[in-house]
Amino acid sequence: MLQLIGFDGDDTLWHSEGYYRQANEAFAAIVGRYVDLGDQRVHDTMLATEQRNLQLFGYGAKGMALSMVETAIAITDGRITAADIHQLVELGKNVLQHPVELLPGIREAVEAVAQQYDVVLITKGDLFHQEKKVAQCGLANLFRRIEIVSEKNAATYLRVLAEFGLQPAQFAMVGNSLRSDIEPVVRLGGWGVHLPYHVTWAHELQNGLGDDEPRVVTVDSPAAIPAALARLHEWAAV
Amino acid sequence: MLQLIGFDGDDTLWHSEGYYRQANEAFAAIVGRYVDLGDQRVHDTMLATEQRNLQLFGYGAKGMALSMVETAIAITDGRITAADIHQLVELGKNVLQHPVELLPGIREAVEAVAQQYDVVLITKGDLFHQEKKVAQCGLANLFRRIEIVSEKNAATYLRVLAEFGLQPAQFAMVGNSLRSDIEPVVRLGGWGVHLPYHVTWAHELQNGLGDDEPRVVTVDSPAAIPAALARLHEWAAV
Repeated sequence: MLQLIGFDGDDTLWHSEGYYRQANEAFAAIVGRYVDLGDQRVHDTMLATEQRNLQLFGYGAKGMALSMVETAIAITDGRITAADIHQLVELGKNVLQHPVELLPGIREAVEAVAQQYDVVLITKGDLFHQEKKVAQCGLANLFRRIEIVSEKNAATYLRVLAEFGLQPAQFAMVGNSLRSDIEPVVRLGGWGVHLPYHVTWAHELQNGLGDDEPRVVTVDSPAAIPAALARLHEWAAV
Repeated sequence: MLQLIGFDGDDTLWHSEGYYRQANEAFAAIVGRYVDLGDQRVHDTMLATEQRNLQLFGYGAKGMALSMVETAIAITDGRITAADIHQLVELGKNVLQHPVELLPGIREAVEAVAQQYDVVLITKGDLFHQEKKVAQCGLANLFRRIEIVSEKNAATYLRVLAEFGLQPAQFAMVGNSLRSDIEPVVRLGGWGVHLPYHVTWAHELQNGLGDDEPRVVTVDSPAAIPAALARLHEWAAV
């Protein structure tokens, strides 16, 4: 039976990807003054740079800004001006300063779940930025533990479970990313509540789950999370 | 009496600041092709940018690289070329890729201390980069806990102590930074073993400790750490 519920941070508790999306649109507009590639090619080139740099930068807005600088210089064959490069650094700073706005209904959902289970926040990305968002979100006191991790993979989830002395089958993860929140947990034998966000970074869309994964319930709003967990709880008890 | 000993990572277990120093010298050389300010003015301007950006970037090489880009554009009045800005991004990448080399004798020192006390690694900076260094250093299994934190202040140390159920007087921190490793611990009523490193970032030199702080022992090599802790242990027992 379920004992511990993990919640993702970005785009599950609070809005995030929209700010990255805005920054990427501004990036394409700046680069578009130098070359006529079309926005999609610019976004694809940027994604390739970011994915190549992930092993060095990890996730987050500072890595995004550095990848923008690198991509812009490459795409424009070095013609981009210093003033425009400065704008790219500012795009990164803007993402780091965005307000922390909770998704509608998520506070009530976490409160309801916390009455029945231990809840933990498992969020990935830049330590400094994530700490600020956790501090500002106003939900921190609902969580038994807050884990800011550099990657969400099997090893990460097993480490968190070990700290609680639990097996994967006793754990469900709630999040928007099939790649980071759902797939590794399900592969371990745990459970997932997928709460899709209206925009998702292409990197996070890449996953190996089937369309009708039996250990996952998809919900369309935070209000539906407690009922989804109740269903998983029943299935886990079989 | 002492129960728990914390070790700093950068420039205490492994070399770090030398790589940042090299990057800053290369930065001054690149900027020096555009303006004749003298290296010291360039370094001072860079430090001011970094300290201003700390509240947004936190510590680490990605923030350093972004601050270099910003500083170079400002110092050269936007005359720096995209190719040279690309070099600045590469300087940041180089720091993120430096080999992890232990200080001579530190392995033996940590092993000796770990036979008498619980030891924890408390290291500050970029989560992703610090995790890689911890994984590569070969000492991780000696530590009871590994804490990668965004800032080393009173709140950080109190949180770690709370996890062990200890009072500050039962804790000593070993590190090279008076600002981050020694001052906050001593102010709380704990103890410090200061192991100066041959180069220190100007930011880390800023501290409010006196020259003859009674709760701090300064050592000149890792081999002297166990004896220094033995002295503190006696003082703590009085």
